[in-house]
Amino acid sequence: MSRFWSAKVHDLTPYVPGEQPQDQVYIKLNTNESPYGPSPKAISAMQAACDDRLRLYPDPQGLALKESIARLYGLSSDQVFVGNGSDEVLAFSFQGFFKQDKPLLFPDISYSFYPVYCELYDIEARTLPLDSEFAIDLDQYPQENGGIIFPNPNAPTGRALSLDAIAALLERNRDSVVVVDEAYIDFGGDSAASLIPRFDNLLVIQTLSKSRALAGIRVGFALGNRELIEGLERIKNSFNSYPLDRPALAGATAAIEDREHFESSCRKVIATREWCSTALSQMGFEVIPSKANFVFASHPRHSAAELYQQLKEGGILVRYFNKARINNHLRITIGTDSEMQQLITRLEALLGNA
Amino acid sequence: MSRFWSAKVHDLTPYVPGEQPQDQVYIKLNTNESPYGPSPKAISAMQAACDDRLRLYPDPQGLALKESIARLYGLSSDQVFVGNGSDEVLAFSFQGFFKQDKPLLFPDISYSFYPVYCELYDIEARTLPLDSEFAIDLDQYPQENGGIIFPNPNAPTGRALSLDAIAALLERNRDSVVVVDEAYIDFGGDSAASLIPRFDNLLVIQTLSKSRALAGIRVGFALGNRELIEGLERIKNSFNSYPLDRPALAGATAAIEDREHFESSCRKVIATREWCSTALSQMGFEVIPSKANFVFASHPRHSAAELYQQLKEGGILVRYFNKARINNHLRITIGTDSEMQQLITRLEALLGNA
Repeated sequence: MSRFWSAKVHDLTPYVPGEQPQDQVYIKLNTNESPYGPSPKAISAMQAACDDRLRLYPDPQGLALKESIARLYGLSSDQVFVGNGSDEVLAFSFQGFFKQDKPLLFPDISYSFYPVYCELYDIEARTLPLDSEFAIDLDQYPQENGGIIFPNPNAPTGRALSLDAIAALLERNRDSVVVVDEAYIDFGGDSAASLIPRFDNLLVIQTLSKSRALAGIRVGFALGNRELIEGLERIKNSFNSYPLDRPALAGATAAIEDREHFESSCRKVIATREWCSTALSQMGFEVIPSKANFVFASHPRHSAAELYQQLKEGGILVRYFNKARINNHLRITIGTDSEMQQLITRLEALLGNA
Repeated sequence: MSRFWSAKVHDLTPYVPGEQPQDQVYIKLNTNESPYGPSPKAISAMQAACDDRLRLYPDPQGLALKESIARLYGLSSDQVFVGNGSDEVLAFSFQGFFKQDKPLLFPDISYSFYPVYCELYDIEARTLPLDSEFAIDLDQYPQENGGIIFPNPNAPTGRALSLDAIAALLERNRDSVVVVDEAYIDFGGDSAASLIPRFDNLLVIQTLSKSRALAGIRVGFALGNRELIEGLERIKNSFNSYPLDRPALAGATAAIEDREHFESSCRKVIATREWCSTALSQMGFEVIPSKANFVFASHPRHSAAELYQQLKEGGILVRYFNKARINNHLRITIGTDSEMQQLITRLEALLGNA
């Protein structure tokens, strides 16, 4: 509390990201980072960008990166927005599209930054409960809304929606913006980017932090019709002219161009997720079928909070959310085969099944 | 215009940064970049940060960088905030401190992003005119205000205020936040950071884009009492958990630590500015005495708009603002001695004094 703060600052309940320990070696399965490095071409491009040219501002438009992304999705560069991580892109989208007379709709169990943005921008929110299987039921989303946002696959559940379900929602909801937050789409889901030519109210948001293993630079992007992209550009240019730095622009562009490395990394993560889900099920965990680079699991006889703590003490970090409905689940990022084998072995010991 | 935008988006008049030509070689004296490269130690640190660890998120707190900055200014790390360029730090400050019942005060001729932030955050603004010498007269700033912000040295004039004048303002204005925007302080001004222990409502904002020649990464910081810094952290953590990427954090920390390179670069810029100001005066320009890495000059017999265009056609970019009171001035960034000699030669030709 401070007499110097704007009133808004007192009301905020900031987002708390997963731990990023700086000083200890953990098997780190808590923030959905890739276990594999980024494209070697991205690393080379970034190193090459680290020279005396750093004295110059970056391209404020990030045009080369936009063009690469546009080519990947068969769009034009003015249908692409780039930002300082998908969190910044999300923030601009909330500010730019969701401040409306009617409430914004999103799932009750979802990315926990959404309600934070609603507070920050005074957006009225209405959450809709996941069904008993922890799935989003888009049929429940009423037509009276000032916008809809959901992750696909959802976080932290990992469950994906079909493109048909998303298209059906868009068919009956043409008057407000629908944001599909595709942070985890590349691990088995179908991107709604293909629906953009049909729906002028669809915005698709992605990140390079997960499937392109570039959480260490901060690059996210949005795809949508030109009007929506222009709205984001207007906010961005009223906030920060140059949100993406030179090395990040160079690395992100090279990473988008290197499809082979990207596809190979995703394939490995998917294969590991599948055997790991089976192994967890065999230990008695209830594992939600995941299309993401994590699994969300609970055990009928063991407390998730205790397992989280015991794993941490043994040097393995996973994510635990102390929130209603999911406070007996663990969200476990998919690491390498070796890391996941160590996790399984440790869990077997903790569960007494060793 | 779009029916999908929040009402706010329609009202915005985004900031327009100086041109960043991507495809042509100019003598680039338009965006106050350093003509010298960043610290070689910063470049090495950034290259070393470009490896497989980019798959991991950066430290969301940026603690190592905060500690370096704190040491430089004799503060503690919780008196330091770091952001994605000083523009982001400024934006958070407007949102966090200046949304008040009374108007925010700033000079009529100043950094043209300030009125943009006021629009973005619905902040009432009142501008106070520079005096006839284009100086800020802090005695004119009324006590009834919801905050005060000014650059020191001012942009685009280059004029600096004394620490005594700033301390006197702070003495009589204890109930609202005073932000001193010190983007250009290292080229001859005295930083108000030394006043922080005396005034709990003082926030000093700096950037690594100018004196540390790191415009290509995006790092700015704020110094102030813990309450003010906590206010900024609350906004930041409700907007983007990780605004600074791994290479930027590494490079910024190394640049702050390398005082020798920093001081040597600043000395060179100052020496060039001094002879260049004299040369411009000898050509008949009225040159405002500058403590920044640019000069602001007008010529009684030659249109600034025309000179800007003629210089551009000859391959030299300077900055021209088509705004009341300053639409016959040029803002000329201080480049290398050789670049400035070419500018002078070209101006001599244009002015017919060759």
